[in-house]
Amino acid sequence: MSSLRVGAIGGGQLARMMTPPAIHLGLEFKVFAESEGSSAALAATQVGDYNLVEVVADFAKTVDVITFDHEHVPLAVLENLEASGVSVQPPSKALAFAQNKLHMRQRLSLLGLPMPAWSEIKTAEELDAFIAQQNGVAILKTPIGGYDGKGVRVVRASADASDWLQNIENFGGSLLAEEKVDFVRELAQLSARSTNAEFAAWPLVETQQVDGVCSVVIAPAPRSTGALLERTSEIAKTIADGLGVTGVLAVEMFEARDGRILINELAMRPHNSGHFTIEGSVTSQFEQHLRAVLGLPLGSTAMREDYAVMVNLLGVDENNTFVEHFDKAMARHKAAKLHTYGKAARRGRKMGHVTVVSDSLDFALAEAKGAAAVLLQGI
Amino acid sequence: MSSLRVGAIGGGQLARMMTPPAIHLGLEFKVFAESEGSSAALAATQVGDYNLVEVVADFAKTVDVITFDHEHVPLAVLENLEASGVSVQPPSKALAFAQNKLHMRQRLSLLGLPMPAWSEIKTAEELDAFIAQQNGVAILKTPIGGYDGKGVRVVRASADASDWLQNIENFGGSLLAEEKVDFVRELAQLSARSTNAEFAAWPLVETQQVDGVCSVVIAPAPRSTGALLERTSEIAKTIADGLGVTGVLAVEMFEARDGRILINELAMRPHNSGHFTIEGSVTSQFEQHLRAVLGLPLGSTAMREDYAVMVNLLGVDENNTFVEHFDKAMARHKAAKLHTYGKAARRGRKMGHVTVVSDSLDFALAEAKGAAAVLLQGI
Repeated sequence: MSSLRVGAIGGGQLARMMTPPAIHLGLEFKVFAESEGSSAALAATQVGDYNLVEVVADFAKTVDVITFDHEHVPLAVLENLEASGVSVQPPSKALAFAQNKLHMRQRLSLLGLPMPAWSEIKTAEELDAFIAQQNGVAILKTPIGGYDGKGVRVVRASADASDWLQNIENFGGSLLAEEKVDFVRELAQLSARSTNAEFAAWPLVETQQVDGVCSVVIAPAPRSTGALLERTSEIAKTIADGLGVTGVLAVEMFEARDGRILINELAMRPHNSGHFTIEGSVTSQFEQHLRAVLGLPLGSTAMREDYAVMVNLLGVDENNTFVEHFDKAMARHKAAKLHTYGKAARRGRKMGHVTVVSDSLDFALAEAKGAAAVLLQGI
Repeated sequence: MSSLRVGAIGGGQLARMMTPPAIHLGLEFKVFAESEGSSAALAATQVGDYNLVEVVADFAKTVDVITFDHEHVPLAVLENLEASGVSVQPPSKALAFAQNKLHMRQRLSLLGLPMPAWSEIKTAEELDAFIAQQNGVAILKTPIGGYDGKGVRVVRASADASDWLQNIENFGGSLLAEEKVDFVRELAQLSARSTNAEFAAWPLVETQQVDGVCSVVIAPAPRSTGALLERTSEIAKTIADGLGVTGVLAVEMFEARDGRILINELAMRPHNSGHFTIEGSVTSQFEQHLRAVLGLPLGSTAMREDYAVMVNLLGVDENNTFVEHFDKAMARHKAAKLHTYGKAARRGRKMGHVTVVSDSLDFALAEAKGAAAVLLQGI
């Protein structure tokens, strides 16, 4: 055996950030990208359409395990790979729950896990009944295809979703209605489970969203009791084991005003809430994901220093690629770790992030936000 | 400006390890490799002979700055690039001192820096006279081409070097004789100087060599007084400024039994004594080198935790690529960061390294040496 070979489907920033740990460990890392010039282009060995079984099967022949930059590969494609003996991690039976939020709610209910009140919705009447039960407001989601706030809507009457209801067969025949949780903050529990069922969790983090998109992550989540940290790690383990997840699992949660911890979303891949681990943890989520899908033992998830703060860099316009502001940002913020993803600039697009690791949370916040402000606004 | 482009000549592990920070920062990083399948193959955009002016000039057209994985590119090639307006960092006039140990000794003497006694040797008589002056033993070096203990010999009479003396024109007409320093340990001072003359030093480290090859690095060097740390940093700054070095500069030194700090060798590139910075420092030597040669502000060189220990993985035979032992090494040593360079296995070859960062030096030493032992011997 000369080297271990991992193939990732999808050429986004997550595949891009799997490349450095693959280089360090000495793994062969290959990316199946949607297009030339992707964020992960350096490691791309094939460009094609991941909806085509034969094309993906060809790629799979060049690696020992297939994993993912995103959750959009059709289950049928993955099941086909698995049937021909390819190691797909996470496996299609786990990924099914990340692709369909309704199936996820159903499965997590069976596992007895804490969630917002929810209901499968097939008709306007069912939706109005749920809204009434929820004191006049609910969150309505399309079960498939949503991310970063897309496919999610606040509704106060079924009329607010008449477009979705009229085309409900486009969403598999059902929508998902959920309690609009009155939360004090959002949390995320990052963990990994290997193909050998070894499990490891990073510390719970606080995530701050703006317009449904992750903006700031603080690790560990401030003012968290030991009981809370144990509880969320246990929730992640129950999900990872119960659903047969392999690789990194991110569990997004609400901390409700009434104290309940409620599961919001799942992601079965490295996740924006875990970018802090690149510098903040002994083992980054990207290295851990590679280890986990290869069935290698997992690394330590201990923090390097007391705190890590990550601030996302969302595109401001089509010109600012942040490089113009490197000089000023680096001169003023010597402890800031700058990350840019090599993507064409576009307003609102995830273009990069900044992480600061420190024994002082105040310093980490100020330094990370300061560097981000320079990169975003040049000031 | 959409991205900054750095080109490195040489496809070894140093160029390989420049790739991850280039990915993170969002730089375009291109490698001019000697052959296909090099350690830095992932970033290689050209394969060719770096002795050929036209070939290197073609490569230089694709980047904003040229830097190096090694110091073997002929000065004439670099002077030619510079004459045509290419930014070469470090510049040829600095690199000249890294390529020729005799010129280095002459220049550092002019700067008044502390060195072992040394002498330029052109004849057997001169060598015997120097040996007599040094109480019967001296170190003899070929001024060019030596590294990792090659081109270095202990001599007690000119007869020990008759082969070199008879072919002295092969070494530019001179050899370099030096005092055989009675040292208690070896130290290395890593630093970087940008094209804007900004300077930053990492903490002084202790390097332990076996058969002339770096084996273990401890950062910071234990039992070092504040005065020593200041002194070695000042020595590095004097050299970097005095020789016009850009990028990373490693100054290898002896701590003599009589207390003297004496400069041994210089390297003008990321260096084995600085691999610990990947995980141990806020800014790694590889990121700092990229910043420095691009004229970007330098990053913090602070330690992430109190100590970092790096242990080299030298090839044991032609079969062990370490991958076979990943399972055991990772299971037993969860805090160890494993690095393998993707090179064909060969006895004595630098094939990888292990780093452990910790607030306990004892733990870091045991964990790093433990992981290395598993990878090397499978036990």
